[in-house]
Amino acid sequence: MNDSSSLEKTSADLPEEALGIAEIANGIVQLGNGLASIELAERAVAAAQKKAVELNTQMCIAVVDSGSNLKAFARMDDAWVGSIDIAIKKAKTACFFGMPTGEIGKLSQPAAPLYGIEHSNDGLITFPGGLPIVDQDGVLIGGIGVSGSSVENDHLVALAGVQLIGVSDLPAHPWRT
Amino acid sequence: MNDSSSLEKTSADLPEEALGIAEIANGIVQLGNGLASIELAERAVAAAQKKAVELNTQMCIAVVDSGSNLKAFARMDDAWVGSIDIAIKKAKTACFFGMPTGEIGKLSQPAAPLYGIEHSNDGLITFPGGLPIVDQDGVLIGGIGVSGSSVENDHLVALAGVQLIGVSDLPAHPWRT
Amino acid sequence: MNDSSSLEKTSADLPEEALGIAEIANGIVQLGNGLASIELAERAVAAAQKKAVELNTQMCIAVVDSGSNLKAFARMDDAWVGSIDIAIKKAKTACFFGMPTGEIGKLSQPAAPLYGIEHSNDGLITFPGGLPIVDQDGVLIGGIGVSGSSVENDHLVALAGVQLIGVSDLPAHPWRT
Amino acid sequence: MNDSSSLEKTSADLPEEALGIAEIANGIVQLGNGLASIELAERAVAAAQKKAVELNTQMCIAVVDSGSNLKAFARMDDAWVGSIDIAIKKAKTACFFGMPTGEIGKLSQPAAPLYGIEHSNDGLITFPGGLPIVDQDGVLIGGIGVSGSSVENDHLVALAGVQLIGVSDLPAHPWRT
Repeated sequence: MNDSSSLEKTSADLPEEALGIAEIANGIVQLGNGLASIELAERAVAAAQKKAVELNTQMCIAVVDSGSNLKAFARMDDAWVGSIDIAIKKAKTACFFGMPTGEIGKLSQPAAPLYGIEHSNDGLITFPGGLPIVDQDGVLIGGIGVSGSSVENDHLVALAGVQLIGVSDLPAHPWRT
Repeated sequence: MNDSSSLEKTSADLPEEALGIAEIANGIVQLGNGLASIELAERAVAAAQKKAVELNTQMCIAVVDSGSNLKAFARMDDAWVGSIDIAIKKAKTACFFGMPTGEIGKLSQPAAPLYGIEHSNDGLITFPGGLPIVDQDGVLIGGIGVSGSSVENDHLVALAGVQLIGVSDLPAHPWRT
Repeated sequence: MNDSSSLEKTSADLPEEALGIAEIANGIVQLGNGLASIELAERAVAAAQKKAVELNTQMCIAVVDSGSNLKAFARMDDAWVGSIDIAIKKAKTACFFGMPTGEIGKLSQPAAPLYGIEHSNDGLITFPGGLPIVDQDGVLIGGIGVSGSSVENDHLVALAGVQLIGVSDLPAHPWRT
Repeated sequence: MNDSSSLEKTSADLPEEALGIAEIANGIVQLGNGLASIELAERAVAAAQKKAVELNTQMCIAVVDSGSNLKAFARMDDAWVGSIDIAIKKAKTACFFGMPTGEIGKLSQPAAPLYGIEHSNDGLITFPGGLPIVDQDGVLIGGIGVSGSSVENDHLVALAGVQLIGVSDLPAHPWRT
């Protein structure tokens, strides 16, 4: 259906347990559901929380489906109240454009091609911490957004959530909503 | 601090496991935490989901803290996308005024005293499915909102979530923000 | 400047201390300031709080100037979080149209002439608790909004705030912004 | 619970009257109240107004509780109408992230890690004039925001308000919502 070579290479980096989950994800996608499984979404949130604890951080974690609509959310104890909206907006932003939020941020700087894109869609967040979620078939099935620490930590925690489900690398325009 | 007789009566109706959790809730409140425990919030969401499955329904479930800020959220498989915002607004509405959303709805009908209150606070939802969460000390520690089926079912599912933590009966103005 | 006969009648009902304040208000208005005196606004909020305590209620109280812009605000201990926005919207609504919010509510019912007016101005609140503030010259100098109890109590507390400054009766279209 | 050495050092710089108030603040926190005392909030606004007069400035001053919900507000005579919203947003922003607004502003410049964060939470203000309010136990109990003059003056006036209640230095993630 699409060139998945880069995806295969990435999936090789996934921990063994992630591949098991990926099979579940495949099943879901074959039903045309996007990230329809709340069980899967909650396991991604739990994996992200676990990583956040390892990093000694307090995070807000949001997962959206392929329509960028909220699927699961958790605010860890002592996480910033201001991070609730940022985590949700990062997840939506990553899914809206099928790329990591930090990549969009590079394009939205002054004089860059997408300067001011944050004004669209009721507000985007374009610094790191949001990642698209792509299943083993290379289909965009949702996004995850994390906020509550440095952008480096936010990214690592988001990555931990993605890896439970699939990858973040996208072939060109593969999605369905 | 307040007349807790009605609370004690209500807590007598709680399942045994709920009373154990209520002790945890008490501990949290003594630390000034409101509904700060993500573990407790997620267990309330899980209890609500379990009830939703029993009723053969697909729900969106939101839990907010005493400041009406989102703490935990889950959209079950096949739940309406339009219910995401309704569940969150129900949880906020119940916490904003310390009463079940359906009670506010009775007062907001045409010719009733609070007609049009829904236009405040960026939008309220005033039909059943939102409940305040009051701990064993009679302190409002948050709210839960459920949307996705009939308002009767929404209410039952919200109630299942509340009962894991405490009750919904409020003495006069007892809360902490 | 305008027919103040109805105003004089009303001011006769004011407590003696209110008349003293009214002289201050007159001074301000001669400077073209509307309700520019923060001292006066804060005294109105304090008078409203005092009345709220007498009624054993917990209120949010907002005062706006003749441009419907916020001048002073207080949320009493244990007042509903949801009442913050309602109190501010009541003050704005009363000033926007120079009449008590409850009067607008009569006109905004289904089949009444202003049905749905609440959708304007980023949201109006049209049940009792908001009053215009008119000085002794019959000039609209602001509004007060109160929320936190029954609409009857909200109205009484708003009235206590108005009476420290002037009256709420308006001659036809007397204001300047 | 946390390293309070820096807090003790800072409290040593407080005027004598502030220490008395701080004891009240401690009492409140032990009751789990956050910045629930309107008396304390209004005294902070009054202290800020006094400082504003000393600096020959006209300010809008807002105080929010730990849920970033408005507690008290005053617009001084001749203060900019446009400063109403800025003062409120500064108070919320400082509380949302537990740090001075100016610190966030350093991180949100073009090419900096948090570029564009202002698009979250219905609009943040990230230049100086907003400060978190931390009580003597190191718990974030709210925020104060000031707007109406230079950002340097805004900051000084906000600081005068904070010092009546506590400090602005935060240990890592200490707060309660």
